[in-house]
Amino acid sequence: MSKLAGNAVVAQSGGPTAVINSSACGVIEEALQNKDVIGNLYGANNGILGIVQEDLFDLGAESYDTIANLRCTPSAAIGSCRYKLGDLEKDREKYDRLLHVFEAHNIRYFFYIGGNDSMDTADKVNRLAQQKGYDLRVLGIAKTIDNDLVATDHCPGYGSVAKFMATCVMEAGRDTEAMYTFDPVTIMEAMGRNTGWIAASAGLARRHEGEAPNLIYVPEIPFSEEQFLNDVRDVHRRLGRCFVVVSEGVKNAKGEYITAQASVDAFGHRQLGGVADYLRQLVTRELGLKARYNQLGTCQRNAIHFASRTDSDEAYRCGQEAVRRALSGATGMVAILTRKSDDPYECVPDLAPLATVANGVKYLPRDFLDTAGTNITDAMRAYAGPLLLGEVPIRVGSDGLPVFSRFARKPVARKLSPFVGKT
Amino acid sequence: MSKLAGNAVVAQSGGPTAVINSSACGVIEEALQNKDVIGNLYGANNGILGIVQEDLFDLGAESYDTIANLRCTPSAAIGSCRYKLGDLEKDREKYDRLLHVFEAHNIRYFFYIGGNDSMDTADKVNRLAQQKGYDLRVLGIAKTIDNDLVATDHCPGYGSVAKFMATCVMEAGRDTEAMYTFDPVTIMEAMGRNTGWIAASAGLARRHEGEAPNLIYVPEIPFSEEQFLNDVRDVHRRLGRCFVVVSEGVKNAKGEYITAQASVDAFGHRQLGGVADYLRQLVTRELGLKARYNQLGTCQRNAIHFASRTDSDEAYRCGQEAVRRALSGATGMVAILTRKSDDPYECVPDLAPLATVANGVKYLPRDFLDTAGTNITDAMRAYAGPLLLGEVPIRVGSDGLPVFSRFARKPVARKLSPFVGKT
Repeated sequence: MSKLAGNAVVAQSGGPTAVINSSACGVIEEALQNKDVIGNLYGANNGILGIVQEDLFDLGAESYDTIANLRCTPSAAIGSCRYKLGDLEKDREKYDRLLHVFEAHNIRYFFYIGGNDSMDTADKVNRLAQQKGYDLRVLGIAKTIDNDLVATDHCPGYGSVAKFMATCVMEAGRDTEAMYTFDPVTIMEAMGRNTGWIAASAGLARRHEGEAPNLIYVPEIPFSEEQFLNDVRDVHRRLGRCFVVVSEGVKNAKGEYITAQASVDAFGHRQLGGVADYLRQLVTRELGLKARYNQLGTCQRNAIHFASRTDSDEAYRCGQEAVRRALSGATGMVAILTRKSDDPYECVPDLAPLATVANGVKYLPRDFLDTAGTNITDAMRAYAGPLLLGEVPIRVGSDGLPVFSRFARKPVARKLSPFVGKT
Repeated sequence: MSKLAGNAVVAQSGGPTAVINSSACGVIEEALQNKDVIGNLYGANNGILGIVQEDLFDLGAESYDTIANLRCTPSAAIGSCRYKLGDLEKDREKYDRLLHVFEAHNIRYFFYIGGNDSMDTADKVNRLAQQKGYDLRVLGIAKTIDNDLVATDHCPGYGSVAKFMATCVMEAGRDTEAMYTFDPVTIMEAMGRNTGWIAASAGLARRHEGEAPNLIYVPEIPFSEEQFLNDVRDVHRRLGRCFVVVSEGVKNAKGEYITAQASVDAFGHRQLGGVADYLRQLVTRELGLKARYNQLGTCQRNAIHFASRTDSDEAYRCGQEAVRRALSGATGMVAILTRKSDDPYECVPDLAPLATVANGVKYLPRDFLDTAGTNITDAMRAYAGPLLLGEVPIRVGSDGLPVFSRFARKPVARKLSPFVGKT
């Protein structure tokens, strides 16, 4: 084992999850237990942007309690961003800057918790460091509610959004059952730009025929408004009500998003939303049925108050594993999860190359949905079911509300002049 | 004490809550303990509509476990409706029908769990029975997430929606903090047609200056788009982000709802929604800031998975109290809550006249909000804080999701010919 002494930086990137801080906790607690090798551990404010701007804070100055309660704190406590670095050539000055910051602070370990765009950035930093002969170990930690990363069995963050989404669908489904004489149709929107993993997880709410959700629509299957209206009409005729879950990213046969309100984010991804409201209006106009819509928005990805313990623990172990493997000499890899068994469920942390995770998208397999494509199958249940098990034991204050961690953020003194390039 | 032997009906009405079934549980368990007086206990499918249609089921045939777990089951398990009866003269045939159904089944006790429209109906049924000399005891049980009923300190249902709303705002607020470089503004919509109680409860999430919500808008204070934009701009300049909570029912100085999409329900209430999306677009267009919106919709009123134990217990005790007082001879009254003390918090079940509750609306007192009207004061904290305390210990199945009760619904044989009037 090659002992590489130096400091470490941990950063978070992209959309928060309920358990991304659990991964951070795994990194921090494991790093702090190896102070003989990792001298100082820094957090980067606002993800990679904080490194470019040399905006770091000292995680070693945080209390043990603040760190421990990260496992019960949603969103990205270190700070996140959506800041995409492009090609090594095109954004060379930024990549060079990252290495300058690393060199200035003797950073030898870079832990980056994020999705495929972040893994792409980490991969490029790793390759540049190798080209330049700068001894750096770059380890990603898989994160995304979208569950669309390849190489890993599933993504930390997915089990918790699935548990919350399915629970809300069970609860709101009971509302539709009680109110069907007045509000017969409810349409609930799920996040998922390109994949239907979250929408499909709502299907776990349906333990018995007739229960919500009655219909699920995902981006992997072309969306037809005509077919949708027929589906809703049929369910309504049969049950007197209809509960629909729809991915924000559903597209028609031409590949166009079904709402026109889309705008584009810095990663070139469309920012969607409003699909449920659009379909609500369509149902009322075309079928003459009163309809409601629920759009949980960012609440769905931060619901630590009813998050999956399985997910939280796996997120922690991925963070811990990244540190352990980095200390053992690994670089250019991502901490992921490998499933050993469905029943009893067993999943262990593992590593995959950054480049592999960076460049793939994992779609919902067709056989996870039934022939019509509007309900989940036993294959989906066997895959996703275990990821929801257990609850995260959050702290509740004397006011009856959750107690989350907040870092003191003791700044690390800057050693470089400000970055002059465009951020 | 006058012992009036006969059967009883319990019905639920209007929008569901997380704890309306807890009130039902209180009614059912108390009634079943008094079988010497209350021979049979029936549930009415779809609220008052089920009585008009003589569509009843036998609650005595349900298992004890199904009944006990109502305390952990959201929405209206008996079945609800929005079906308003008008004046005694205008809707006389329906009121007569109600009494015919009661007579046919020897119903001597009518328990109606609902809001002010339902209390109005119950009051008229009670008066008609007295006019006709039919010995009937009519007891309402206060219910509404809106907390807008008069006479009661607060409404069963409100503490739970407040706890969930504040929790979601804390969680989504952390998202906005982490993502402010990319998504600086989040706008969250709260239910509340005429009153700002739910939106104001979100203010409990803000333990420290700067935390979400930064701004709250309620229907009691005229909404100015110009002032709103100034407020958001100011907060964004100061913090780099802004988290807004807005009631669905905010109105401008002319008393007009600020979105044009409103439609009207059977009660003459406007069905709102879409305010958060509208304001999101306004912020982006006028301030050039990227904004998101969250619209929890019916999820907010059914969130038993993180409901207030205080609320649930009070809901139960109101149901229980209604039965006890009816057995003691009361009629024409509603089970409500009277506060004895803020600290330590103590609230007891009490009775108020149906007519009083039927005809009032309780608005958010002006001094519960600060001078600007965009944040809550200590007066609001002292009032609402205790209502959120404790969590309802829901059952979680082997699949990691909540387990709710569902009635077997053994039908009560019909004794009358079908109602021929319009329902």
